[in-house]
Amino acid sequence: MDEEIAARVAALARHPSTRRLVAAALAEDIGRGDVTTAAALAPGLGATATISSEEPCVLAGVFLAPLVYELVDPTLRVAVLAADGAAGGVETPVVRIEGPAAGILAGERVALNLLQHLCGIATLTRRFVAAVAGTKAAIVDTRKTIAGLRLLEKHAVRMGGGVNHRFGLDDGILIKDTHVALGGGTAAVVTRVRERAPAALRVQVECRTLAELDAALAAGADAVLLDNQTPEQAAALIRHVRGRVPVEVSGGITLANVAAYAAAGADRISIGALTHSAPAVPLHLRIVAA
Amino acid sequence: MDEEIAARVAALARHPSTRRLVAAALAEDIGRGDVTTAAALAPGLGATATISSEEPCVLAGVFLAPLVYELVDPTLRVAVLAADGAAGGVETPVVRIEGPAAGILAGERVALNLLQHLCGIATLTRRFVAAVAGTKAAIVDTRKTIAGLRLLEKHAVRMGGGVNHRFGLDDGILIKDTHVALGGGTAAVVTRVRERAPAALRVQVECRTLAELDAALAAGADAVLLDNQTPEQAAALIRHVRGRVPVEVSGGITLANVAAYAAAGADRISIGALTHSAPAVPLHLRIVAA
Amino acid sequence: MDEEIAARVAALARHPSTRRLVAAALAEDIGRGDVTTAAALAPGLGATATISSEEPCVLAGVFLAPLVYELVDPTLRVAVLAADGAAGGVETPVVRIEGPAAGILAGERVALNLLQHLCGIATLTRRFVAAVAGTKAAIVDTRKTIAGLRLLEKHAVRMGGGVNHRFGLDDGILIKDTHVALGGGTAAVVTRVRERAPAALRVQVECRTLAELDAALAAGADAVLLDNQTPEQAAALIRHVRGRVPVEVSGGITLANVAAYAAAGADRISIGALTHSAPAVPLHLRIVAA
Amino acid sequence: MDEEIAARVAALARHPSTRRLVAAALAEDIGRGDVTTAAALAPGLGATATISSEEPCVLAGVFLAPLVYELVDPTLRVAVLAADGAAGGVETPVVRIEGPAAGILAGERVALNLLQHLCGIATLTRRFVAAVAGTKAAIVDTRKTIAGLRLLEKHAVRMGGGVNHRFGLDDGILIKDTHVALGGGTAAVVTRVRERAPAALRVQVECRTLAELDAALAAGADAVLLDNQTPEQAAALIRHVRGRVPVEVSGGITLANVAAYAAAGADRISIGALTHSAPAVPLHLRIVAA
Amino acid sequence: MDEEIAARVAALARHPSTRRLVAAALAEDIGRGDVTTAAALAPGLGATATISSEEPCVLAGVFLAPLVYELVDPTLRVAVLAADGAAGGVETPVVRIEGPAAGILAGERVALNLLQHLCGIATLTRRFVAAVAGTKAAIVDTRKTIAGLRLLEKHAVRMGGGVNHRFGLDDGILIKDTHVALGGGTAAVVTRVRERAPAALRVQVECRTLAELDAALAAGADAVLLDNQTPEQAAALIRHVRGRVPVEVSGGITLANVAAYAAAGADRISIGALTHSAPAVPLHLRIVAA
Amino acid sequence: MDEEIAARVAALARHPSTRRLVAAALAEDIGRGDVTTAAALAPGLGATATISSEEPCVLAGVFLAPLVYELVDPTLRVAVLAADGAAGGVETPVVRIEGPAAGILAGERVALNLLQHLCGIATLTRRFVAAVAGTKAAIVDTRKTIAGLRLLEKHAVRMGGGVNHRFGLDDGILIKDTHVALGGGTAAVVTRVRERAPAALRVQVECRTLAELDAALAAGADAVLLDNQTPEQAAALIRHVRGRVPVEVSGGITLANVAAYAAAGADRISIGALTHSAPAVPLHLRIVAA
Repeated sequence: MDEEIAARVAALARHPSTRRLVAAALAEDIGRGDVTTAAALAPGLGATATISSEEPCVLAGVFLAPLVYELVDPTLRVAVLAADGAAGGVETPVVRIEGPAAGILAGERVALNLLQHLCGIATLTRRFVAAVAGTKAAIVDTRKTIAGLRLLEKHAVRMGGGVNHRFGLDDGILIKDTHVALGGGTAAVVTRVRERAPAALRVQVECRTLAELDAALAAGADAVLLDNQTPEQAAALIRHVRGRVPVEVSGGITLANVAAYAAAGADRISIGALTHSAPAVPLHLRIVAA
Repeated sequence: MDEEIAARVAALARHPSTRRLVAAALAEDIGRGDVTTAAALAPGLGATATISSEEPCVLAGVFLAPLVYELVDPTLRVAVLAADGAAGGVETPVVRIEGPAAGILAGERVALNLLQHLCGIATLTRRFVAAVAGTKAAIVDTRKTIAGLRLLEKHAVRMGGGVNHRFGLDDGILIKDTHVALGGGTAAVVTRVRERAPAALRVQVECRTLAELDAALAAGADAVLLDNQTPEQAAALIRHVRGRVPVEVSGGITLANVAAYAAAGADRISIGALTHSAPAVPLHLRIVAA
Repeated sequence: MDEEIAARVAALARHPSTRRLVAAALAEDIGRGDVTTAAALAPGLGATATISSEEPCVLAGVFLAPLVYELVDPTLRVAVLAADGAAGGVETPVVRIEGPAAGILAGERVALNLLQHLCGIATLTRRFVAAVAGTKAAIVDTRKTIAGLRLLEKHAVRMGGGVNHRFGLDDGILIKDTHVALGGGTAAVVTRVRERAPAALRVQVECRTLAELDAALAAGADAVLLDNQTPEQAAALIRHVRGRVPVEVSGGITLANVAAYAAAGADRISIGALTHSAPAVPLHLRIVAA
Repeated sequence: MDEEIAARVAALARHPSTRRLVAAALAEDIGRGDVTTAAALAPGLGATATISSEEPCVLAGVFLAPLVYELVDPTLRVAVLAADGAAGGVETPVVRIEGPAAGILAGERVALNLLQHLCGIATLTRRFVAAVAGTKAAIVDTRKTIAGLRLLEKHAVRMGGGVNHRFGLDDGILIKDTHVALGGGTAAVVTRVRERAPAALRVQVECRTLAELDAALAAGADAVLLDNQTPEQAAALIRHVRGRVPVEVSGGITLANVAAYAAAGADRISIGALTHSAPAVPLHLRIVAA
Repeated sequence: MDEEIAARVAALARHPSTRRLVAAALAEDIGRGDVTTAAALAPGLGATATISSEEPCVLAGVFLAPLVYELVDPTLRVAVLAADGAAGGVETPVVRIEGPAAGILAGERVALNLLQHLCGIATLTRRFVAAVAGTKAAIVDTRKTIAGLRLLEKHAVRMGGGVNHRFGLDDGILIKDTHVALGGGTAAVVTRVRERAPAALRVQVECRTLAELDAALAAGADAVLLDNQTPEQAAALIRHVRGRVPVEVSGGITLANVAAYAAAGADRISIGALTHSAPAVPLHLRIVAA
Repeated sequence: MDEEIAARVAALARHPSTRRLVAAALAEDIGRGDVTTAAALAPGLGATATISSEEPCVLAGVFLAPLVYELVDPTLRVAVLAADGAAGGVETPVVRIEGPAAGILAGERVALNLLQHLCGIATLTRRFVAAVAGTKAAIVDTRKTIAGLRLLEKHAVRMGGGVNHRFGLDDGILIKDTHVALGGGTAAVVTRVRERAPAALRVQVECRTLAELDAALAAGADAVLLDNQTPEQAAALIRHVRGRVPVEVSGGITLANVAAYAAAGADRISIGALTHSAPAVPLHLRIVAA
């Protein structure tokens, strides 16, 4: 499993969108240069620093620290001390940076901003995953991500034990209430989509009533999504499906009620808050030697 | 004041970083095309949709909706119905989009993702601002922003009534504990910075003790930052400053304790959570006519 | 159907990859400027030109002509006289350009290069489609496209009556012989993929023997691909499938033998030559008025 | 001569347009990741693969394979086993790739797509060159290239033994029939161009009649182009030139008639099909060790 | 002639390199925003401003002002009051800008920086041109331009009455002393270049002695360059050429001695200082109405 | 001090704007390739070359030579023999390049163009600095830079012993006559700016009269700028300031009069000509071994 994470992390680290994001973050933070450090410190000063968390967390995005610092100053030596997906202990160093102090400080904020956000997502995901432990329900992300960070945020969800939904509008079919409303009802839309959509893609359909469920299944839906149902409503609909297709629930899921949805029999529980509202994990950089 | 917001919003809308962000967000969401809508809907179908909130909020980023939709389909007509900085009412439309339904759905997620994040920041900021109402304390943001969104997030802080701290390492001087530790103590560092830093920039110094405060002031600090102090500790240090320079406090500020820091006499209270941990405001897009 | 093509063409015309391709093509052809025309013609000279074909063809990419000319000289008026997907007659104008002669000549080669290539693909595709008329077989493209042109080339295949296979490695699952060889055999690989692949994607499996077919179907393959089989071999394997899943054939398909594969019962016949070896349609630009 | 090819190939490999093309090709093929391989194979699996041809061919673009794989996974070791310009034998490996199997498969299609196209051009060019062997005629390319690939395609023509015509509108002067028609006749246009064009550039003039030839030569043409002439017509015009300037012929040249044009005395024979209609050479990647 | 300048200016204004340069200049000057103006002026304030010169000059680059201001604020109305190539009078407005004062001030420096530099080049060129009036000598630029501005600087040379030499290493052949030294002497190098260089390009050869001249001419040089000769030396060499090919002189040319080189019979006099050392023309922006 | 320059140079060398500028300069000079060298020299030819100056100068930008040559041909070995800020002696090598001769020649012009421009700025700055030696006056640059080169030009000013003013409109406040005129007078504008501008920035105010000076100081200006004053006028105003704030003078400063402004008591003397009108230093590349 570690090898799988290593492979995913390596691919993400090489992905052009990751490179662009890191470069953009540095450009917006460093701009024309770190004027404080340039004035405050002797130019040749070296130091060693570590990044660690003030709270227990699930790590994600640690592999980004070397990318950040490589652009800031390639003479810095950056060691990743803990793998994405591992537990981050309080004050346990996860990254160590050695070299010119000016570079360490210039990249500090960008590195921390990325890590604290992604660790936040992984940590929140892990809490949802723990809340449904022992059920068959998978915790699934959504497209409710922050602009420009989708690949990284979806990676963080995985590191927290979650499962990725489609990455965009082009690699999955999800017929939503808007399609149904505009397209003439569930049966008509599902039928049309099965005829015209790419053969490689399964057809998932959002349903809110028994009638819609029946229509979707009859028209050949490969999976259904029950949006904005109470756990009780969801349970009734899921019973109705009788395992013919996988069932996903979404809308209004919280740590308090997620277990109820899992108990209702959902195969997948998708939660926008994983990516759009995860609080940052408090991380900091400390100079440990000068 | 409305004219000032209008001018800021117009400049942000034209800023290359905004354009790049919107384009990147669309690229990651739409990719090679919205396969569901292409299959589900009749090609020429038109519709009207609105974006509104499910909760009261402070609006920010509404001006981005036209930028998003202009790239998705320039034949769409997008009306911004409420200004950034205004209160967003429950189910009160803030944006209306008319035109090809396929375009409305293709841009929906990107538009909502941007707005829900920025409204979240503005709304959280407004709550902090309200909590210190009647004091001289300003609520100030930090560089703890999400990669690539700094200009927009700092705009959202402003829309919530907050004040912007420096935008990067190049437009403000803040001597932090790391500089002091690496540079030989407060007095030495402040003195060096005053000699060598750009003349256009004031010198702010992080202080944690009376001795550091005295050293900073003696060496010519223009402002001080008290980090990770209790309200009581902060109050004592602020009394010691006796108004000679503005005092900022930061670290561990919450809605529960922010008023105590304001009461301690802080001029500015800076809060990383405004940008790194603001929960998204629940917004949705509704088809109101087909 | 026209509205569907219009919608696709409009989306393609706005796609960033199309914009970049057109700009790159102009940059490589015009460079620092058209020195011949600058020296040869009076600067203010106006003209009218048309683009037409020397042979009957299926049109594709006609909508690119305005994109090219808009970058060359936005004062040119470009009329698209025939829709993508329509038949192009000999010497029947498909585009008319009016305005400064220098601009007409500066954009000529780039416009023609794009159109002649895409019309070539559409025309070849139409011939394959015609060859299997009356059967259930769809003519399908592959990922064997020319670098940078995939979206446009796959559009051209559609205009010729073909069907698009997956657009990349991320929007479809196709287990090929290399996966089977490296992954421990058909049964093991298909089983693993069904467990771990994105839920939104169907699983297609390349099979070359009855045993592989049986293993794939038993492990839950959603579709199969028979590569490099003779029509007779394909027919035998297809009979063995008995309609349980759709069957695609590929490898060595020519206009001479495609009907045999269709007669063998293939649901889909995929042909790399559609995109990698279609001869260009001879198009030219003519000055029709000065 | 090998050193010359090595130098050209090295320069092309570093050219920004090559880098951009390879990156764009990978982006359009890999997108967010190779979902099949990620699910099908054990993450750490290593392999060795080779690329070879199913038919005899002239190699071109082999140097691109390392560029592709370096972006896919820099831990892969890629050996180029045969030089551009050399003959490619049936099933003779031209590239060997060792390392993570996932990377080998992720880059396969992009590498093959580039090589099969460029080898196709080189191979077709070589056939034309062979057809005129023993004459003074050079086989020359045109600006009829595929968008974004001009430098590479013109390199492939060279590898096939062809000669490059101008690379764009800015590095050569070619007065065509359109310039003559719009500019007031051959004499007037050639005279004007000689006065006004960059001093570094020779003046080539398209001529279709004896009168045009005489006018062009009298006005100081440095070279002429005879377009769309039969071999007999071309021979007559070439006799009329009497070696005063080099003569190029173009239009309707095929493998069947190219020798006749050479026999007619043409110095250069330019052929658009070299780049716009060369069939791809069938190349494949084989796993040779796991 | 005005139409020719209009056409050149329009093409330059659309050239991607111009667009990129203007955007880069604005990004480096405006950065995150004009903090002075944002604080100093009422947001809605409108104004009218003009740009004019403090000294007589030759105008070049005036067409860039609208490009600058369009990016700063598209609601500004920018009128170009004088054409490139025209004389700029003292305090005669050449550009008028009306609209939001904040935009006028935000774009001021970038617009002035571009214009003052290009007008400086045009003005210096005009002085050289005037100094050789009545002779056949053309004043010619070089590749000694400032990084990123070549197209614009060469345009400015033209506006001053100069003539453009080659634009880069790819659109002209100039055999310099380094080629001769490394390549085995003038005769060998010129012969090799005539065989191998693109047919579209003439061959110019730098010569410093009678022997080199003779060798170059014998080997087929189309033009010669005499570098770092005194006027007397140049005259002797030019007499030796006897008009067989055009002669260019370069090296150490000043306003004081340029006439002597022209009198020596040079066809072209190339001067690096035109682009690398032309003093800026003092231009300013004035608010003429608020 | 050397370490400080080394740190600045290293940061500049990594700055994205530097990378983009070097790449753009190479693209505009080399384009599709150096046709002369490709034809003139044997492909494998190696050589050693040095860059040196024909005149004494102050070096700046020497660190760019390796950046240029790394893009041209990474097999070249480039040694920087003299540091930025050092004196450049006549014919003293400052850069040595060894490797393929074709690469040395291909990068020559771009390297020289950058160095001759930046050395020109440093050298002119040094002359101004020398002219005010013994006074407290600093020689300061302006925003009157050449598009795209601001960071490099401001570095060159530093290398000449000058001091950098603000880098853009976003990292310093300078209230100019236009702000005063549009904003209702000095007192009103300064007061408004102090209230509304970023806390990190000092407030500098352009003043032309005693009354404006008094108003500015009373309203809290942190520094003043006296523009377009004679030395005598400046002296009178400076006496009036009585050292309360630093005083900068600008406008019409020449090598002839700069000492008078320094004698008048100016703290800073800002000079646009440092960057917009510095003559290039004559540098050349010589082949020293083949």
